[in-house]
Amino acid sequence: MENVYFNPELLRFLLFQVHDLSELFKYDHYHDLDEDSVQILLDSVKSFADQELYPFFRQMDESPARFENGKILVHPQIGKIIRKGAELGLISSQFEYKYGGMQLPVLVHYALLHILDAANNNVSGYLGLTSGAANLITSFGSTKLIETFVPQMLQGNWMGTMALTEPQAGSSLSDITTTAYLQSDQSYKIVGQKIFISGGDHQFAENFVHLTLARISDAPAGTKGISLFVVPSRRMEADGTLVDNDVITAGEINKLGQRGYATTHLIFGEHSDCIGWLVGEPHKGLSYMFKMMNEARMSVGVSAASMATAAYYASLLYAGQRKQGRPIGAGGRKEIEQEPVLINKHADVRRMLLLQKVICEGSLSLVLECARLTDIHRVSGGEAKEEALLLLELLTPVVKTYPSEMGIISISNGLQILGGYGYTADFVLQQYYRDIRITSIYEGTTGIQSIDLLGRKIPWQGGAALALLRKEINSVVDIARQDMILSPYAEKMKDYVRLNDKILDHLSQFAKAGEYEKYLADASIFMEFFSTLIIGWQWLKMAVKARKNENQGHAPAVNFSLEILDGLRFYFKYEMPKMIAGAETLTNTDFITLDKVKPN
Amino acid sequence: MENVYFNPELLRFLLFQVHDLSELFKYDHYHDLDEDSVQILLDSVKSFADQELYPFFRQMDESPARFENGKILVHPQIGKIIRKGAELGLISSQFEYKYGGMQLPVLVHYALLHILDAANNNVSGYLGLTSGAANLITSFGSTKLIETFVPQMLQGNWMGTMALTEPQAGSSLSDITTTAYLQSDQSYKIVGQKIFISGGDHQFAENFVHLTLARISDAPAGTKGISLFVVPSRRMEADGTLVDNDVITAGEINKLGQRGYATTHLIFGEHSDCIGWLVGEPHKGLSYMFKMMNEARMSVGVSAASMATAAYYASLLYAGQRKQGRPIGAGGRKEIEQEPVLINKHADVRRMLLLQKVICEGSLSLVLECARLTDIHRVSGGEAKEEALLLLELLTPVVKTYPSEMGIISISNGLQILGGYGYTADFVLQQYYRDIRITSIYEGTTGIQSIDLLGRKIPWQGGAALALLRKEINSVVDIARQDMILSPYAEKMKDYVRLNDKILDHLSQFAKAGEYEKYLADASIFMEFFSTLIIGWQWLKMAVKARKNENQGHAPAVNFSLEILDGLRFYFKYEMPKMIAGAETLTNTDFITLDKVKPN
Repeated sequence: MENVYFNPELLRFLLFQVHDLSELFKYDHYHDLDEDSVQILLDSVKSFADQELYPFFRQMDESPARFENGKILVHPQIGKIIRKGAELGLISSQFEYKYGGMQLPVLVHYALLHILDAANNNVSGYLGLTSGAANLITSFGSTKLIETFVPQMLQGNWMGTMALTEPQAGSSLSDITTTAYLQSDQSYKIVGQKIFISGGDHQFAENFVHLTLARISDAPAGTKGISLFVVPSRRMEADGTLVDNDVITAGEINKLGQRGYATTHLIFGEHSDCIGWLVGEPHKGLSYMFKMMNEARMSVGVSAASMATAAYYASLLYAGQRKQGRPIGAGGRKEIEQEPVLINKHADVRRMLLLQKVICEGSLSLVLECARLTDIHRVSGGEAKEEALLLLELLTPVVKTYPSEMGIISISNGLQILGGYGYTADFVLQQYYRDIRITSIYEGTTGIQSIDLLGRKIPWQGGAALALLRKEINSVVDIARQDMILSPYAEKMKDYVRLNDKILDHLSQFAKAGEYEKYLADASIFMEFFSTLIIGWQWLKMAVKARKNENQGHAPAVNFSLEILDGLRFYFKYEMPKMIAGAETLTNTDFITLDKVKPN
Repeated sequence: MENVYFNPELLRFLLFQVHDLSELFKYDHYHDLDEDSVQILLDSVKSFADQELYPFFRQMDESPARFENGKILVHPQIGKIIRKGAELGLISSQFEYKYGGMQLPVLVHYALLHILDAANNNVSGYLGLTSGAANLITSFGSTKLIETFVPQMLQGNWMGTMALTEPQAGSSLSDITTTAYLQSDQSYKIVGQKIFISGGDHQFAENFVHLTLARISDAPAGTKGISLFVVPSRRMEADGTLVDNDVITAGEINKLGQRGYATTHLIFGEHSDCIGWLVGEPHKGLSYMFKMMNEARMSVGVSAASMATAAYYASLLYAGQRKQGRPIGAGGRKEIEQEPVLINKHADVRRMLLLQKVICEGSLSLVLECARLTDIHRVSGGEAKEEALLLLELLTPVVKTYPSEMGIISISNGLQILGGYGYTADFVLQQYYRDIRITSIYEGTTGIQSIDLLGRKIPWQGGAALALLRKEINSVVDIARQDMILSPYAEKMKDYVRLNDKILDHLSQFAKAGEYEKYLADASIFMEFFSTLIIGWQWLKMAVKARKNENQGHAPAVNFSLEILDGLRFYFKYEMPKMIAGAETLTNTDFITLDKVKPN
C-alpha cells in the first residue's frame, strides 16, 4: 500500500489556486518556471520522501542520535538523505542561479518542506538549517565568506546551524556571554558555550558552519552588543586543507521526541583556538539573525503543520479500518443485532477527525500564505513589496504558533481516535505526539511569539500591518458574500473582525496610558484569539476558491469542494466561537498574573 | 531537600474543611476515627511515599515492565511497595473490620491515593485494582469466593485485575466473545483473550485474580448476556495447593508512558483448562462490574489530578530557581541594566502556573467531593443515601474526564515553563506529559464518558440528579453572596448555571423529538462545557471556606486564603468564559459530524 502522510491534491489546490503560484511566474525572477515544471518537482520530492524518508521515520525514533567518543552519531539513513536531498536541490532550491540555486519561489520551497516534514520530521532540519545559514551568509556576508562557505553548503558537504542559545540565557538573548576577541587579521577568537544546537554535529558532514551570536569583547550590554559570526567546526588553511577549529561537541541532549534530529551542546574555544569571522557590521548581529530566525519560525510552522497532517492521515486510516460499536438507533439505543460499524461513522470520531483536518489544512494554508508574501517581498517593488513585508511580519508569530499549539491538540485527538492502541508503541501516533511537543518551544516559545505579536507587530507603524490584514480579509469576505452558501460565513467573519478591533481598542488603552505590563499581560490569550481569526480567514479563502471550481463544474471539483466546505462549516461551528471566550478574558481587568503574591 | 509533589496543607484544607471529613465520624461506621488518627495516617503514607515511591519514579520509566520467558517482569521496587503497602493497609483501608479492613472513609482513601499517585503513578494501580477486585467479590460473590480470595488479596499476596477489554471489541463491551462453559460442579471453563490488562502479571504475586467479563455459552447477545467471573491465574486444589489455571501471559504492551505499570495480554483456556467461578447471577455481570468501574473511574480521576499536581510542583520549583529575562519597564522596554529575574515574575509564566494550580486543585476537590458522596451513600440512610448516589452518578463521568483532559493541558503548560529543558530527559516534566496521556482513554474514553453524562446521567429520573446539583451549587452561591469579596463570583456562578440550563433546554428538544443522534452529537463539547461549571463550583466552595478561615483570623489562614482566592479569580477570568464558547457551539444546529460525507 502507498504511504499516505499528506494530500497531494490539497497541496496543489493550495499552491495553484488559493495562493496563486502561477501569478508569481510573471515576475522576471521566476519566469523560467511553469505549472508543469513545479508539478514534476513535487512528484520527484514525493517519490524521494516515499522511498528515503517515510520508511525510516520510526527507526530514527527507536535509534536516536547519540554521543560517542566526542562525536554525535545519527541514524545512517540521514547521510543518504542529505546526499540525495542536496542532489535534488533541496538545500539550494531558493537560491539564485548565480549561487548554483534553482531560483524557486519560496512558496514552492515550503510546499516541498511540507512533503519532507510530513514524511519524516527528523530530517528536513538538517537541510533547512544549512539552507538558512547559507542564505544568511549570502545576504550579509562578505564575498570572501560567500565564496568560502556557500558552495560547500549548497552541495551538502558542509552543514549549517543557528547557534544562539546558551545555558544561562535561554530565550533572553540579551544575556548571551559568548565572546569574540578581535585578532590582528580581522578574524575573531570565539569563546563560549551553546546548547540545543539542532544538527550541531553528526558523522555525515566534513564541516559544520555555525552561524553564531557572540559579543565582541568591548561591546555594549544587551541585544545592541550582539554580533554575528561564521564559526566553522573546521577552518580552511591557506593551502585549502581543513583543520580543527576548536569547536568541541560536549554532548547530545536526549529528548522527548524528534529523537533522530541531533540536539547538540557545543563548546567554542576551550583551547583558545576557535576562529570566527564577522558577518556584516559589528553589533548588528541580532538584526541579521532575525532574517534566519523569521525563516526558521516559518519552518517550525510548516513542520508542525506537517507532523499534524501525517498524524491526521494515520488516524483517518485507522478510523476507516477499525470496526467497533453501533450507531444510535431511532429509540436512542444501539441496536446490537447490527454488525459493528467502522468507527469513522461515529459522530465523536468524525468530530475529532474534522478537528484534525481544520487545524492541519488551515495551518498549511497559512504557511503558504506567508511563503507567498516572502516571494512578493523578494521579487516585486514599491508599495507591494513594502506591504508584503508588513503583513508577513504580522503573521510570522502566528504562523509559528498556531500550527505548533493547535498541532499538539490535533495530534492528541488523533491518538484518542485509536483508543488504547494509540497509547502503545505498536502505532505511530504516540511518536507524532512526542515529536510535535517541541514546536511551541523552538525558535521563541509561544510566550515570546505572543509578546512579539501584541507588543511589536500589532502597534507597528501605527497599526499599518493590521490595516493591511483587514483589507485582505475584507476582499475575501466581499467575494464570499456573493455566494449563497458562503454568505453566512462571510457575515460571521465580519463580526469576528469587528470583535478583534474591539479587543484591540480595549487593550490599547493600557499602552496609551503607559501601562505596558497590563497591555501585555494576556498576550498569549490574545495570540489564541487572533490566530483563531487568522485561520478562519484562511478557511474562508479556501472555500471561495473551492466554490469557484465547483461553479465551473466537473465532478471531482464538486467532491473536493464539499470537503473544503466541511472544513469551513466545522471551523465556524467549533473553533471560531473560542474567540468569544477569549474576548471575555481579554476584557476582564483583574490582572491577577501581575500581582506580587503566590505562586512565587 | 524534601520532595515536593503535593501540598499537605491544601489536602488537609480540602479534607477537613471543604469536604468536612469530621462530619463523617458521627456515623457509626466511622465512629472509631478522629482528626488526629487520620492525620497520623496521612503522615505515615506521605513518609512511605517519600521513601519508597517518589525516589523510584524515574527509574521505573527508564526500566519499564517487560515480557521475558512467558512472564512479565517489573521494577524490583514494585515488590517492596506492594508488600509494605499491604502492611500499611493500603489495599484493605476501605474494607470493613470483618474482612480485616481499616473501615476508613472513602474520602480518606482517596486522600491517600492522591499522595501515592503524585509520588509515583506507576504503582498505586497494583494496590488499587486489588482492592477494587476484592471489593467486587465481597459485594456480589458467594461466601466461598469471599473466603477463598479476599483475605489473600487484602494481604497483598494475591493481586486483582479487571479483565474487560478484548482485541476486537475495545470500548464496545457488547461485542466481547470470551466464553464460559458450565461444568457439572457449577464452575465454568473459560476461553478467550483479554488485552490491556493493567497489573495482569508480574513477579511479585503468587496469584492473579482476574475479575473477568465473559459470555456464558447460551447467553443472549449484547451487554445483557455478559456475566462476571473470578478467574485466578492459579487455582486452589482440594488440598490447598495452587496449580496452574491455564491463564497464559502472551505479552507486555509497550506504552508511551506509565511504563512501570504492567499492561498485559492474557489468553484464557488455550489448553481447555481454565476454570472460573461465577460472581452473583448469570448475565448480570456488567451491572456488577460497573461498581468496580465507577470506582476505577474515580481512581483515574485522582490519578490524573495527582500526576498534574506533581508536575505543577516540579514547574513551580523550576520557576522559583531559574533566572531569565526582565520585567517590562515603564517605557514598555526591558531594562537591560537590571539583573535577570526569576521567571516566576513574568506574567505569562505566572499565568501558566496559575492554570496548573486551578486545574490540579479544582480536580482534587472534585475527586474528594465524589469520595464523600460515596461515603454518604455507604453509611447514611433514606433520602440522603439516595441523593448521594444520584449526585455521584452524575459526577462520575466528570470526575474521570476533567482531571484527565485538563490534566494533559496542565502538564503541557508545566513543560512549557521549562522551555527547551522541559523537552529533555534531564527533567521530569516530559515523563508526566507521557504518563497522563493514558488517563483520557482508561476506563472509558472521554467520548464514552460524554455520552454517559449527556445520554444517561443528565436525563436520569427526569433530571433528578441535575436538580440536586443545582441545589448544591445554590447553597454555595447563597453563602458566597454574603461575602463582599465573593459576591461578584457568586453572581457569575448563577449566570453560568442559567446558561447550563438554557443549553440543556435547547438540546432536550432533540431528545424529545426522538432525534437522539442530534442530541448526542456534541456530547464531548457538552462535557467540556459542563465540567467547566463543575470545577467553578468547587472553586467557589473552596473560596467560601477559605474566607471563613480568614474571617476567624490568624495570619497563616490569611495567606492561605489569598492563594485560594487567586485560584478563584484566575478560574473565573480564564476558564469559566470557555462556557460561553461552548454554548455557542452547542446551540449551532449545523450537525456536520452526522453528515455522511467525508472524512470516511
